[in-house]
Amino acid sequence: MNTLPNGLPPPQAAVPQAERDEHTRSRLLRAAVQVFNKKGYSAASVREIVELASVTKPALYYHFGSKEGVFQAILLEGLEAFRTTAAKAVAMPGTTRERLTRLCEDLYGLFMENVPVIQVVHRAFHDPAGNAPDFDLVEVERVLGGALKEIVEAGVASGELRAVRSEDVALAVIGVIGSAASRHLHPSLEPVSPARLRRVLDLVFDGVFRERREQGDEKP
Amino acid sequence: MNTLPNGLPPPQAAVPQAERDEHTRSRLLRAAVQVFNKKGYSAASVREIVELASVTKPALYYHFGSKEGVFQAILLEGLEAFRTTAAKAVAMPGTTRERLTRLCEDLYGLFMENVPVIQVVHRAFHDPAGNAPDFDLVEVERVLGGALKEIVEAGVASGELRAVRSEDVALAVIGVIGSAASRHLHPSLEPVSPARLRRVLDLVFDGVFRERREQGDEKP
Repeated sequence: MNTLPNGLPPPQAAVPQAERDEHTRSRLLRAAVQVFNKKGYSAASVREIVELASVTKPALYYHFGSKEGVFQAILLEGLEAFRTTAAKAVAMPGTTRERLTRLCEDLYGLFMENVPVIQVVHRAFHDPAGNAPDFDLVEVERVLGGALKEIVEAGVASGELRAVRSEDVALAVIGVIGSAASRHLHPSLEPVSPARLRRVLDLVFDGVFRERREQGDEKP
Repeated sequence: MNTLPNGLPPPQAAVPQAERDEHTRSRLLRAAVQVFNKKGYSAASVREIVELASVTKPALYYHFGSKEGVFQAILLEGLEAFRTTAAKAVAMPGTTRERLTRLCEDLYGLFMENVPVIQVVHRAFHDPAGNAPDFDLVEVERVLGGALKEIVEAGVASGELRAVRSEDVALAVIGVIGSAASRHLHPSLEPVSPARLRRVLDLVFDGVFRERREQGDEKP
């Protein structure tokens, strides 16, 4: 075949055979996360990325086609990990409480393992130059919303949950995970431990008030 | 006196008397928010700000001393509005539910009225060049944490609330407000109406589950 994995024609310069492997691809991704974080998407150069990865420039073009291609690959891998984590929690047997807790804890764990990638996403999201490539933020929301919908609707049907709307649970849960995760993005804020996350989730699950207000599901 | 409001010596160029007023100061602040948003802090220039505000350059130095001075003034005014809003909700009489709801709704309203300022803060927070001046994120947290502590502890004492920790309520509530507010920062996400915010807050207040887990405050 005369095309590359990215579907583009091969670049002028030949790519050494040794750099066509997965290992080189991973090195490039890790280096790109560092460079994008330090410089921002617009100011980051292909040269810096390949130098940090200690590979040749053609290797980057071979695996990703362009700087934008590397960026999209970072997001895509993040999204895939997110999707896998959400799907696992949804597939897990157990009570609604166990499944909801598992989903939130696993997603939080995933964030914690990928703080530099989250930072790249945040920085691109807020790139003032507006030069960062588009990425589908709505898809993240769709994946998490879909997972929560499945667990919450099953919980309402089984009577474990009150008659709540899954999209409202999603907003609350995304908020808790988000405010906990954002504390890892800035050195002046105290990080939230998994134990504390669990306590705050329990607060949302059980409620803050002693007397509950009537809900649609509760006949007086 | 031979010093300016900002404590610096007067600049070379004289500042026209007409530009020493509050009106000019406000114009400069509004223009700076726009320019910082469009360009980012590092790339924004004093020239662009004064041109957009239709005032002279010395007027900016008279009121703020420097580009960083304008930036700090934007944050300071935002923080002051935040502080005033929080203090009002804390001072309000009523049930704990009314006071908590009021605090959250008023802060959300404040965010909605100041989306461009929030964007400047976010962009500076994520400035990849790391050139944006420092600002005290912890202070925002301290103000909100303090307000919530007062309302929550009174509510626990009066028996309206379960034996919850105010810092956990803070994380949940900041999360809900934050995830709702962040939807206004990107055109691809659906904004959250005040009515929906209220519904999600009620969810956190009343809890998602029908059966509550035992808390420290509930003897078996």
